[in-house]
Amino acid sequence: MESIVMDEMFIGRKASRTQLVTEREVLIFAGVTGDLNPVHINPDFAEKSIFKKQIAHGMYSVSLISAVLGCELPGAGTIYLGQEINFLAPVYLGDVITAEVEVLEMNIEKNRLKLKTTCTNQENKIVAEGVATVKPPKVKAL
Amino acid sequence: MESIVMDEMFIGRKASRTQLVTEREVLIFAGVTGDLNPVHINPDFAEKSIFKKQIAHGMYSVSLISAVLGCELPGAGTIYLGQEINFLAPVYLGDVITAEVEVLEMNIEKNRLKLKTTCTNQENKIVAEGVATVKPPKVKAL
Repeated sequence: MESIVMDEMFIGRKASRTQLVTEREVLIFAGVTGDLNPVHINPDFAEKSIFKKQIAHGMYSVSLISAVLGCELPGAGTIYLGQEINFLAPVYLGDVITAEVEVLEMNIEKNRLKLKTTCTNQENKIVAEGVATVKPPKVKAL
Repeated sequence: MESIVMDEMFIGRKASRTQLVTEREVLIFAGVTGDLNPVHINPDFAEKSIFKKQIAHGMYSVSLISAVLGCELPGAGTIYLGQEINFLAPVYLGDVITAEVEVLEMNIEKNRLKLKTTCTNQENKIVAEGVATVKPPKVKAL
């Protein structure tokens, strides 16, 4: 767990996390959010869908981005202001997703950062891409 | 569970879900996403933070929006293309969050919808607001 203040930021600073997506994660995510869409939880339904196989919730990938923002860069004490995300490709069970954030813009006066947020699978294909806006901690929270 | 095609859409069509947010949801969400930021899971840390109390993950609220899109409007067969979200206020344990989606724009040629997405708490305060872009099912999936 990190806690990185504006003074330590620079354009291009990056952090990432990598997560294997299994049926277990997808079912827990479905249960806790109530998103029981059958393309995520029913293999028979998913087989007949455009995706051909069960896929993870798009918001699961975005939650991995959020985890990097909240735990790594900037980390503890961060205030999440906004997120734009485009879903570019499906995430299948067994995929290994790397969520990366990279500082794009620093507004020191307003203590605000914009970060490029990207989720990539094990074939280096971008599955989701966008921009996050956050306030880093004013003083180190840890 | 619904599955609503473009022919049945109209500007202003709405759907929503309401969910009590407890420590249980927050801890499960933290566990499955790996977002163990202490403001979500550690009451002592949260007490000293700007929020004064434990807060839910912002992405948990957005996941409730995603659940409405994937299960209610348009429902099964929906392809999620993108989401913009601004976090406007914290969600505390014990809050009751209503996630609502409302059709804003219909692009019949491209089979695309834009929906206004809003999460409101029990005091009718907007905690998160944005716009989703989806493809509704081409044929009813259920």
